[in-house]
Amino acid sequence: MIGFTGNPLDRADALRHDAAALAAATVDWRARLLRLDGLMPGTTDDGRLAWTSMADLPDGAEPVLLGLDDGRPCFAAAIPGLRTDTAPAMRSPALMAALAALAPGEAAIYAAARSVLHWHARHGHCANCGTPTALFRAGWGRRCPHCHAEHFPRVDPVVIMIAENDGRALIGRGKGWPAGRYSALAGFLEPGESIEEAVAREVAEETGVRVGGVRYVASQPWPFPHAQLMLACIAEAEDDAITLDTNELEDAIWVPRAIVAQVLAGGEGPFVPPPPYAIAYTLLNAWVGEG
Amino acid sequence: MIGFTGNPLDRADALRHDAAALAAATVDWRARLLRLDGLMPGTTDDGRLAWTSMADLPDGAEPVLLGLDDGRPCFAAAIPGLRTDTAPAMRSPALMAALAALAPGEAAIYAAARSVLHWHARHGHCANCGTPTALFRAGWGRRCPHCHAEHFPRVDPVVIMIAENDGRALIGRGKGWPAGRYSALAGFLEPGESIEEAVAREVAEETGVRVGGVRYVASQPWPFPHAQLMLACIAEAEDDAITLDTNELEDAIWVPRAIVAQVLAGGEGPFVPPPPYAIAYTLLNAWVGEG
Repeated sequence: MIGFTGNPLDRADALRHDAAALAAATVDWRARLLRLDGLMPGTTDDGRLAWTSMADLPDGAEPVLLGLDDGRPCFAAAIPGLRTDTAPAMRSPALMAALAALAPGEAAIYAAARSVLHWHARHGHCANCGTPTALFRAGWGRRCPHCHAEHFPRVDPVVIMIAENDGRALIGRGKGWPAGRYSALAGFLEPGESIEEAVAREVAEETGVRVGGVRYVASQPWPFPHAQLMLACIAEAEDDAITLDTNELEDAIWVPRAIVAQVLAGGEGPFVPPPPYAIAYTLLNAWVGEG
Repeated sequence: MIGFTGNPLDRADALRHDAAALAAATVDWRARLLRLDGLMPGTTDDGRLAWTSMADLPDGAEPVLLGLDDGRPCFAAAIPGLRTDTAPAMRSPALMAALAALAPGEAAIYAAARSVLHWHARHGHCANCGTPTALFRAGWGRRCPHCHAEHFPRVDPVVIMIAENDGRALIGRGKGWPAGRYSALAGFLEPGESIEEAVAREVAEETGVRVGGVRYVASQPWPFPHAQLMLACIAEAEDDAITLDTNELEDAIWVPRAIVAQVLAGGEGPFVPPPPYAIAYTLLNAWVGEG
């Protein structure tokens, strides 16, 4: 399963819009509250997220409806003043260990919860007029009491891709990455672009390689540091000369399919692959499977 | 070509980061400024966007770099206090006529420009602390002078899909749509969802139909009212009983492939199709072509 997918909860959109039913859900005796330390998940020994009762909702916090688990309401707490600059970063060893220990659907619940809580923490004011906003729709929106603008959780589309040429994949290495790590190229999609156009632009910007046909492979929600939608693609390179944008990448290399297969299988090779919960891993695997 | 794709401008990301080169570009004698009335495009008789010189940059406005046209800098003006509530809505007859008259790549330039200008108009304050922000990076970002948060133009991913079952496509009709119009179902992707998961959720929410396999077909930037990324998919329905969410849809119907083909070809049928510049049209065409 692709990392952070497979959330087993029913998001129960209708419940978000029904104030009376929502109020009842928060005091439902079966309701449970996700246990978090800041944005760090609590986990159990058997690979599950830790939950507590709604009685543990902190003073001043507001419940965000994560969804229903076979009818059982599941919430997370939006805590005013939550610090995001001290939150576990993508590569914090403690967070990585916690995620690695979670069953796939559990990681997906965490990703959704973290994304929404991070958004509340960083979007407490109206972008239109600056007034402090109030949570509504069970935590899936904020509303401005002054200009009445409604704001909804932001998800940034990101294209992530390998270019292929003559049976080789183009992968790159960002600054500060773990030793030896190479992965797919990636970048934010901009207003006015299709996925296919953003892929071509990003590959050209980062490596100077021009690509033609682009095909979509898979997508993944990614919660670090804020909510992103990873759009994984394979692009046909029209040439293989690399002109590196050293502001973006430390290195980029062409790797033959057999070598990529060997590295993914745990063997020796010129690079350390991305972790299995990253869609770049799924993408490289899919490309190897096409050979 | 898919509507609003094919922007011929080089977005010139490096130029956005180079203050000196950017300042020079704004006074380049070849530089040109997109002519807009609010967010309404000016057009020429031969299907092009109308441009003027940088001398027409309004007092207090800031130039946004749309990109380079064969080396020639192209800008739009971010005007403080631009009204978005009076901007041409998606279905305003004047805007529709203007768009219909534009060559495809021209519509893509307009879509990018409109998206960024709309974002500036609605995001003049820091969502984190409420302070008025300042444009930076040639208009592709805003920065907070108080908390130093950096904000970038928002693009909302939207899934748009038909479900298929036994050679029939499930299409729906929203409230207030033009007479007879039916189109693909659609909805915003949420934090913590893959495209495939969002498709399944939206189809189930709006029509009660459960879907299995989801396959991506194409994507499109959509600038109404703000920047969206349309992600067009076909989903395999596991049943065909419709339970309509009447808050979302006025009607939903199953239409056999031959009838969809006939309608797209301009013939009689039980519905009026979406316009050619909408990706729903591309999607229905692709599905007809699979038969």
